[in-house]
Amino acid sequence: MSHNMELTMVKGNEALGEAAVRAGCRFFFGYPITPQSELPAYMARRMPEVGGTYLQAESEVAAINMVLGASAAGVRVMTSSSSPGYSLKQEGISYMIGSQLPAVVVNVMRGGPGLGNIQPAQGDYFQMVKGGGHGDYHMVVVAPSTVQELVNLTVLAFELADKYSNPVGIIADGLLGQTMEPVRFPEIMEDPGPEKKSFALTGARGRAKRIITSLELSPEALEKHNDKLQAKFAVMKQNEARWEEYKCEDAELVVVAFGTSARVARAAVDAARQLGLKVGMFRPITVWPFPSEALAALTERGVKRFLDVEMSAGQMIEDVQLSVLGKAKVEFYGRTGGIVPTPREILNEIQKVLGGETK
Amino acid sequence: MSHNMELTMVKGNEALGEAAVRAGCRFFFGYPITPQSELPAYMARRMPEVGGTYLQAESEVAAINMVLGASAAGVRVMTSSSSPGYSLKQEGISYMIGSQLPAVVVNVMRGGPGLGNIQPAQGDYFQMVKGGGHGDYHMVVVAPSTVQELVNLTVLAFELADKYSNPVGIIADGLLGQTMEPVRFPEIMEDPGPEKKSFALTGARGRAKRIITSLELSPEALEKHNDKLQAKFAVMKQNEARWEEYKCEDAELVVVAFGTSARVARAAVDAARQLGLKVGMFRPITVWPFPSEALAALTERGVKRFLDVEMSAGQMIEDVQLSVLGKAKVEFYGRTGGIVPTPREILNEIQKVLGGETK
Amino acid sequence: MSHNMELTMVKGNEALGEAAVRAGCRFFFGYPITPQSELPAYMARRMPEVGGTYLQAESEVAAINMVLGASAAGVRVMTSSSSPGYSLKQEGISYMIGSQLPAVVVNVMRGGPGLGNIQPAQGDYFQMVKGGGHGDYHMVVVAPSTVQELVNLTVLAFELADKYSNPVGIIADGLLGQTMEPVRFPEIMEDPGPEKKSFALTGARGRAKRIITSLELSPEALEKHNDKLQAKFAVMKQNEARWEEYKCEDAELVVVAFGTSARVARAAVDAARQLGLKVGMFRPITVWPFPSEALAALTERGVKRFLDVEMSAGQMIEDVQLSVLGKAKVEFYGRTGGIVPTPREILNEIQKVLGGETK
Amino acid sequence: MSHNMELTMVKGNEALGEAAVRAGCRFFFGYPITPQSELPAYMARRMPEVGGTYLQAESEVAAINMVLGASAAGVRVMTSSSSPGYSLKQEGISYMIGSQLPAVVVNVMRGGPGLGNIQPAQGDYFQMVKGGGHGDYHMVVVAPSTVQELVNLTVLAFELADKYSNPVGIIADGLLGQTMEPVRFPEIMEDPGPEKKSFALTGARGRAKRIITSLELSPEALEKHNDKLQAKFAVMKQNEARWEEYKCEDAELVVVAFGTSARVARAAVDAARQLGLKVGMFRPITVWPFPSEALAALTERGVKRFLDVEMSAGQMIEDVQLSVLGKAKVEFYGRTGGIVPTPREILNEIQKVLGGETK
Repeated sequence: MSHNMELTMVKGNEALGEAAVRAGCRFFFGYPITPQSELPAYMARRMPEVGGTYLQAESEVAAINMVLGASAAGVRVMTSSSSPGYSLKQEGISYMIGSQLPAVVVNVMRGGPGLGNIQPAQGDYFQMVKGGGHGDYHMVVVAPSTVQELVNLTVLAFELADKYSNPVGIIADGLLGQTMEPVRFPEIMEDPGPEKKSFALTGARGRAKRIITSLELSPEALEKHNDKLQAKFAVMKQNEARWEEYKCEDAELVVVAFGTSARVARAAVDAARQLGLKVGMFRPITVWPFPSEALAALTERGVKRFLDVEMSAGQMIEDVQLSVLGKAKVEFYGRTGGIVPTPREILNEIQKVLGGETK
Repeated sequence: MSHNMELTMVKGNEALGEAAVRAGCRFFFGYPITPQSELPAYMARRMPEVGGTYLQAESEVAAINMVLGASAAGVRVMTSSSSPGYSLKQEGISYMIGSQLPAVVVNVMRGGPGLGNIQPAQGDYFQMVKGGGHGDYHMVVVAPSTVQELVNLTVLAFELADKYSNPVGIIADGLLGQTMEPVRFPEIMEDPGPEKKSFALTGARGRAKRIITSLELSPEALEKHNDKLQAKFAVMKQNEARWEEYKCEDAELVVVAFGTSARVARAAVDAARQLGLKVGMFRPITVWPFPSEALAALTERGVKRFLDVEMSAGQMIEDVQLSVLGKAKVEFYGRTGGIVPTPREILNEIQKVLGGETK
Repeated sequence: MSHNMELTMVKGNEALGEAAVRAGCRFFFGYPITPQSELPAYMARRMPEVGGTYLQAESEVAAINMVLGASAAGVRVMTSSSSPGYSLKQEGISYMIGSQLPAVVVNVMRGGPGLGNIQPAQGDYFQMVKGGGHGDYHMVVVAPSTVQELVNLTVLAFELADKYSNPVGIIADGLLGQTMEPVRFPEIMEDPGPEKKSFALTGARGRAKRIITSLELSPEALEKHNDKLQAKFAVMKQNEARWEEYKCEDAELVVVAFGTSARVARAAVDAARQLGLKVGMFRPITVWPFPSEALAALTERGVKRFLDVEMSAGQMIEDVQLSVLGKAKVEFYGRTGGIVPTPREILNEIQKVLGGETK
Repeated sequence: MSHNMELTMVKGNEALGEAAVRAGCRFFFGYPITPQSELPAYMARRMPEVGGTYLQAESEVAAINMVLGASAAGVRVMTSSSSPGYSLKQEGISYMIGSQLPAVVVNVMRGGPGLGNIQPAQGDYFQMVKGGGHGDYHMVVVAPSTVQELVNLTVLAFELADKYSNPVGIIADGLLGQTMEPVRFPEIMEDPGPEKKSFALTGARGRAKRIITSLELSPEALEKHNDKLQAKFAVMKQNEARWEEYKCEDAELVVVAFGTSARVARAAVDAARQLGLKVGMFRPITVWPFPSEALAALTERGVKRFLDVEMSAGQMIEDVQLSVLGKAKVEFYGRTGGIVPTPREILNEIQKVLGGETK
């Protein structure tokens, strides 16, 4: 990705939108819901400027099905919502993965369950990572924690979606969407376009018909199709795990956090280091595939405790435990209801855990 | 539950419907989808006979919201669908849990992802157990493996839904729905009714208004609400785990399976025993709460290997691993696409695993 | 119709609902809109008391299609709306007439066009009488002008709907719906029921399948079907015209008005008579069939002028002119926007018209 | 309208679409229904070429409301459907007229009522001309009978829509839509655009908010609004009536017909003339306003009989009778079910009518 040299001050939600445009996205289907409404608003204005299409669908169910249709036509397409609206898209996401169609699907999470509130939260980890829809499936889910990363990972999301012919999720929250930071945008990229996509439905004049479907009535054919999907997921798992280690070299305690939680945790780690505590942070940049091996490797380098910090009642912690499988203790600290933990709170937890250890 | 003495031959789907009627369910909202359509068809005929209401909604999204409304009015209510239709209900389920409303939600799983096919499968474990919808939530999910158990667990589902003011899921598959077996039905029970439910919206003449909502705009209030929910989930986790152990006493290898897979695995275990192999089966009857302690206890009784068998690419295996946390090896055998494994296949896997062990 | 002797004070909207119940109506599908919402509210409460079904549909389009479905099952069914909602039912009404299905369809008119307001009006004459939907069709439309007539004509509407296997319309307005007058209700009648209806879809076990459709792909078959419908409409036109003549015996000027306008016009005629003016009133009780012959007959009895009074910009006036075809002058006085003319205004118009004549 | 010199062979449906494009139409919202599907198909392809937007709505109800929205934004917009779909648009049309918003609304009529069939018919005259929606309203409705006229009247429709800030209807049928004839298209015209439309909602930065609504809660305000609308309708009635007289100079019998019926009637008139019969044809080019004065004038020029010919059971005949008001006899010949009468049939009717006259 060749970056434009210029630094621009921009809000997270709009940075995400502009990054999508730079990545060649020319179709956006959505339905307004706080706290992501600035993103569709940006796209509504921006899409016509670049010859693209913005359509406010009649519901989130409609939006994801429009995404499916546009993707089948071979174009780069995105949709966005917040927690309740993302739930409504579960059927469509399963259809797209079954049909092997690329797209970028954004969830700017808010407090839940139910209507909840419009504050930042991370309670949709399970539905984005484990598969909120039906059937066996996976998709890469990127978890930005700065506005610049929002830009970079959005561009990456479009590339990986096309590379694997599979939707890619962006898991964000309202705080990141509202954060204003200087960013560098990449040059406008070309969507490779329908011509380069062997599946794209561009009309059948003079050639055999193409069919895109997730329907396979014969069990044998459907299992074969699933085997193919699973093989693809295995490649994704092998190649696409991304993470950041921060001051982990000599760490005895490692905080695990993603997105906004990680932003706060980093400050807590810095504060802990100032107190002389050997604390680091492990930040999954992709939450699927979860960087399990990298995390497990830390236990071999002497990490005895992990403190999993989430803006939820504890969801990613299952992936942390599945990674370390009993080789280290995993503690948890979480806030819900749209409350963002403070560095002070996390430092307290770190001290509590380390204190507990010394006993 | 006092059982009627009479044995009746009945199909699984219809047994589920009749059990719901016996449990006092008088409202059913659904939308047809194979392979569960016999259940709504049964309810369409049966509901008017008992003074109940059957309504075919205009979509699955509508159906789950009608369930929410009926539940808020204090009556026993059920909905049913199959995989894609269950995905469409994720938003509504999150709303009901956030609003603390009871209901029974059935998923007769079919092959996926996407449209997939109409054959039996177990690929919706994640969305039913981890939370396919948004926000932090849990619900009891029962996993019957015989028609009699379908009856008993349906009655239990209504009782637990009311007990915890929370939806309860029934995870089944098309094979169980089609299986015809002799069952005993319980006597018709009385729904305790709106009068006994402190939340029920039965009009406000002469008393203060009640409000049912999952909306809490203040983060503090929403976190407090979540703390209350989490405390309830903890009680459910503590009290409602159910499982069956089969020939586990001296087992070195234990097959873990639920529902239809467990039916087949039982036959494989019997065959293995005839060959002198020390094999047992552990069958979760509730998949949430997952009977983790009971499963972990087996490792202390000498079980060195688990063979997780699913009609999926491997989903429950995460809960098995989270239970044993590295204290035993966990192998996997799965079929997808609507294919039901045979006892012979599972026996082969058992032998392979045990053979592998001896080396 | 055998009347219960007891007089009850009741509002028009509720009288309509109770009359429907007495007429054997057991299914009501609607969607709320002022000024008819009291009618569905009454039905929501009353239907369960008599073992009937009330369902608030997701839209007026849904409601009329539910009416079609219930009617096809052979039961007495009603729907109700106000002007904009009635427009949404035009497609469904055309389908029901094409399919020869009975039902009672109520329009409690409000000010238009568009959203207009919620005051009483008569601006939907054209869409109810000429055919707001597509294709050649007619239906009897009754136009009550007192609460007792609302009761009687509602019962008649159900009888005529069944007699002709055709929807029957009730054209009313918000003022009549709100008027409280003493009425006598008839005894509860039995719906003849699906058994007596040769078309009713009551299942096909042991007999040939019945099909209800308005589809006839062959032009010859569709024309034959239309000939059959037209022959039925001709019988309706011949037999079902109803009207009232008031002080017409020696009248030189006859006011023509229906519904609430006629209520007011009657007072104006009385006032005119007190002034010695030879004025009468002709009130269509059915606006389709329009009592053309009876109205034309007045011209032979010396009536030289008609004053058509409507709460609209002039719609029924076309039927008045089509009746008298130039044999008398037809003047018009109308108010729109939900304004009900006063007797004084109409008397002024009468004097103006008569004064004009003497010159 | 300056015409391009070039003659092109083109089908009616496509000619309509291209004419709309030439007239500056850049937004099209529709839903497919035979026999007009070629028109949206053409627009789907053509709109992107001219920088316009084609959107297939989720229903006809949605389509007409999208038209309302686009029109409120000040652009030239069209929708199209066939009979059942046109019925679904009645509410929206009333809203647009109440809100004084321009648009072009096409009805390519098919056999009715109900589903009917997909053959050409004229049974929607009443719903297009008398007002199928609620409230007092009128709109100009043009009735082309050749492909060239389809082109010219489509352009005129956009001009009149803007001129009067009112929808304009195009009443056509499947035969005309399928007819292929050489036409000349006008040069591409500029939509005057939102800047020229005082109502257009183009944002409110730096100026007072504009509000577009058809809601007027006060009866006095709504009546005033209606008076304004009625005054506008009166101007339309005065100025926009269009018709063609064919061989009427010495005619004793005049055939009245529009659209496809008129095409056939013309041939019948020619055949009658060859037999020496004094027969002419009167063809309304606008069916609203109906050219009543011109038709009535014929009775003063010696026409004693009219033969109204329609592809319906008789709808326009009411306007013929309202025009001549008993001063001549009006006979009727109609075919329904999608049957187009032949010149031979109409000639027979002419002879029958004239024969009857001589007796």
